[in-house]
Amino acid sequence: MARDRTKGRKGRVVDYVRLTHPFDPQRVFSDDYIAAMHEAALGVLARDGMKVLLPEARDLLARAGARVVDDMVHFGADLVAEALRTAPRHWVLRAANPERQRLYAPGQLLFSPGSGCPNATDAVRGRRPGSLRDFTETLALQQSFDVIHMLGPSAEPQDVPPALRHYAMMQAQLTRADKPMFVYARGRAQVAESFEMIRLALNLSEADWATGVWASTVINTNSPRQIDVPMAQGIIDFARAGQMSIITPFCLAGAMAPVTVAGALVLQHAEALAGITLAQVARPGAPVSYGGFSSNVDMKSGAPAFGTPAHLQMQIGSGQLARHIGMPWRSASGAASNSADMQAAQETVMSLWGALMAQATLVIHAAGWLEGGLSFGYEKFVNDVEALQTLAEICAPPPATPDDLALEAIADVAPGGHFFATAHTMARYDTAFYPPLVADLTNFGTWTEAGSQSSTTRATAIWQRVLAEFQPPPHGAEAADRLASYIAARTAAGGAAPVD
Amino acid sequence: MARDRTKGRKGRVVDYVRLTHPFDPQRVFSDDYIAAMHEAALGVLARDGMKVLLPEARDLLARAGARVVDDMVHFGADLVAEALRTAPRHWVLRAANPERQRLYAPGQLLFSPGSGCPNATDAVRGRRPGSLRDFTETLALQQSFDVIHMLGPSAEPQDVPPALRHYAMMQAQLTRADKPMFVYARGRAQVAESFEMIRLALNLSEADWATGVWASTVINTNSPRQIDVPMAQGIIDFARAGQMSIITPFCLAGAMAPVTVAGALVLQHAEALAGITLAQVARPGAPVSYGGFSSNVDMKSGAPAFGTPAHLQMQIGSGQLARHIGMPWRSASGAASNSADMQAAQETVMSLWGALMAQATLVIHAAGWLEGGLSFGYEKFVNDVEALQTLAEICAPPPATPDDLALEAIADVAPGGHFFATAHTMARYDTAFYPPLVADLTNFGTWTEAGSQSSTTRATAIWQRVLAEFQPPPHGAEAADRLASYIAARTAAGGAAPVD
Repeated sequence: MARDRTKGRKGRVVDYVRLTHPFDPQRVFSDDYIAAMHEAALGVLARDGMKVLLPEARDLLARAGARVVDDMVHFGADLVAEALRTAPRHWVLRAANPERQRLYAPGQLLFSPGSGCPNATDAVRGRRPGSLRDFTETLALQQSFDVIHMLGPSAEPQDVPPALRHYAMMQAQLTRADKPMFVYARGRAQVAESFEMIRLALNLSEADWATGVWASTVINTNSPRQIDVPMAQGIIDFARAGQMSIITPFCLAGAMAPVTVAGALVLQHAEALAGITLAQVARPGAPVSYGGFSSNVDMKSGAPAFGTPAHLQMQIGSGQLARHIGMPWRSASGAASNSADMQAAQETVMSLWGALMAQATLVIHAAGWLEGGLSFGYEKFVNDVEALQTLAEICAPPPATPDDLALEAIADVAPGGHFFATAHTMARYDTAFYPPLVADLTNFGTWTEAGSQSSTTRATAIWQRVLAEFQPPPHGAEAADRLASYIAARTAAGGAAPVD
Repeated sequence: MARDRTKGRKGRVVDYVRLTHPFDPQRVFSDDYIAAMHEAALGVLARDGMKVLLPEARDLLARAGARVVDDMVHFGADLVAEALRTAPRHWVLRAANPERQRLYAPGQLLFSPGSGCPNATDAVRGRRPGSLRDFTETLALQQSFDVIHMLGPSAEPQDVPPALRHYAMMQAQLTRADKPMFVYARGRAQVAESFEMIRLALNLSEADWATGVWASTVINTNSPRQIDVPMAQGIIDFARAGQMSIITPFCLAGAMAPVTVAGALVLQHAEALAGITLAQVARPGAPVSYGGFSSNVDMKSGAPAFGTPAHLQMQIGSGQLARHIGMPWRSASGAASNSADMQAAQETVMSLWGALMAQATLVIHAAGWLEGGLSFGYEKFVNDVEALQTLAEICAPPPATPDDLALEAIADVAPGGHFFATAHTMARYDTAFYPPLVADLTNFGTWTEAGSQSSTTRATAIWQRVLAEFQPPPHGAEAADRLASYIAARTAAGGAAPVD
């Protein structure tokens, strides 16, 4: 089903699910300077410390050897080193569909959609606050393209009361999709219930649950140097449950972080190490991912910028820091543009390539992100999927057998002739090239006769078709049955507050 | 002047002229397979041969040891090896303004604009056949941005008679710009007169002329396996004059070339080696560049595609082949899109990154190319310049001194605070980040109030401003005086035919 979304011709099968990086990771800093940045981050953690707002987290860290003064936690280098020793280097992201499960490890390449957007926008209905309908539709879009490897909360379902929202989000993920899932760290009760819904809907034994990561969350530190209550709870609860938290300082250079690329990364690194350490103290060996989503602010407006030179340099520097400590890590692409235009495409494609140069394990916000995350754009999503499929295609090298040199065909075609009808072409023509999803390669006359539609306009028909043809995965009906009474009972009891 | 086009703030000076590649070159084939492709190309040249339509070229090659049968030339491996021995590995592209001259060598990075377009298009005047006004305007756009390193014939001045067109094109380049120039290989007389106009306008002695390359041309073989009369003349005449010809087979896999990436590159490589050999036979040591502009055709329409997976793989494979023979080389970015939309941006940015991964010395069609080269788009040019400036910025590493680690600033800012007012930020704020040319980073409300303009729409005002403010370089008036009587006399004599 999903593979047909590439308009794949009969017989052309390219694996967009299991991607490994095609390029060597690159550097913007010398190895010595990276080592100095790591040492500098350790110095920040020991000397300046992190403000940790959750007493339980401070107690855990204190018992592990941290120096705690009021709500400030000072991490010694030994404590961080021990955390980096117990943190695993790879794990499996499980999914309802075993074919969707992925290894999360350095060198692997995963894409997840634009996430966390309060608004949704498309050319038909305009921009509106996210609703459950938008959440469900965007989930169907994610599910329909193989190159989206993990689910994400693209549009916030603001029409569902906060205490019930996690039921709706888990129900949709568990019944209408079959890829690795996302769970918000919004209070201990919501997290525990979300885990419970996964086990229930997928009928997982304790042993099944322990085979890998069934739920992932993103932990944003409150840069600079602060971890708030829900985030600290999330780190602890995901670690204890063996689920993945992705520690992601959002260090905007010039605002919540130093104005230099190096300084912003030192702060990011210190905060990420603090979160990783808390996870390992909560449960040694817990799957916790390094994360970096640092960029610069626009100097005129103070707004976050994406796809900029500083963003790319921070991506590549983050990759160097992650490799320095040997961990898988997440980066992010994204767009500040307010519409699905050339700026939006450039920002996203630039930052996708930044993530490739940085050899990020996971690229979040890889499709659909607009307005620096304030809107999820349907047409932007379709165009971004084209970019992701292009990158997925080059993850596999071109065929390289003696036959691929085409020496007979070259000898057979006369000078100035053409290869259309050669046996070499005929045997491969149908499967040789990537068939575009939204790109229109017809000539100007044909394109004009067809209405002079831009790629943004053409994308509308594509997401409409995908939604019209969408079929939930086979396990969905049974999962819905399993969840129904649980959600009904919990809803009747008033749900669970998103903060404690 | 030109640097102000980045809206650069006072004090922020970034060199967009002298760029070197920031990343290691990448591979899509093993080194062994690349060696096999080179051997395969030598086999094609020896066994199948090239059809060479110019008798003088066949005679030159025969005297150098090629086997000539009728109009087919069979190149022995020794002949090609000798050409690769005498071909230089680097040279200087001279320019009217010495600050614009560039080393042409492996590892250097140069961008030239979308070139050779029969049409021009912009949002104000629509799409029209290229005119001298379009040629002159697009030249002013090229001249106004430092990140465009070489001039190119963006729009063909079809309102100038073919026998006089080279006068107009050279006059514009010599009087309204000061960067390395482009000369079409359109007949011996036009080439000779174009060289003469350069020497005359810039008052070059024979010794000055011999100091480097003052004029460059692109030689497109007639794939497969054919070199036509004007192209063969161009190779010979540019070589003898010590000027650069860029041998560029345009191998469209599945049409004029084999359908496989490897097969298309074997044909490209054979044809490029044939052109390089002819140049070296004409004058050993002549500056001749390897070139590759291979991509795939769209399977539905037969139209050329750009920024596709196959295009990127061919770019990277071309880079491997160029490095195998140790030569600088040109690649190309480009867009098939019929309008300045997300598709256009994606195609161009993808192929720009392909050129980075391939470590191309020169990237032609880097800004403004639309419709697979049938139109030069003004708004597309402005948006592409944003992409080029982004790449130019990351050619320099971020600052990496101990101060850049920002340890004092990190210690001084309280948890949850901000860095806006720290001394570290204040000392760098004005120059830290790239200021966007066309990207709008304001929030949705501000953007909506300002008219909800897409980046394509905003680009219109930018090219209009650039053209309104354009000032020809200082040497222009004197160059115009030097050229006037020559062009008048030649025009009175009827000009020079574009073919012999």
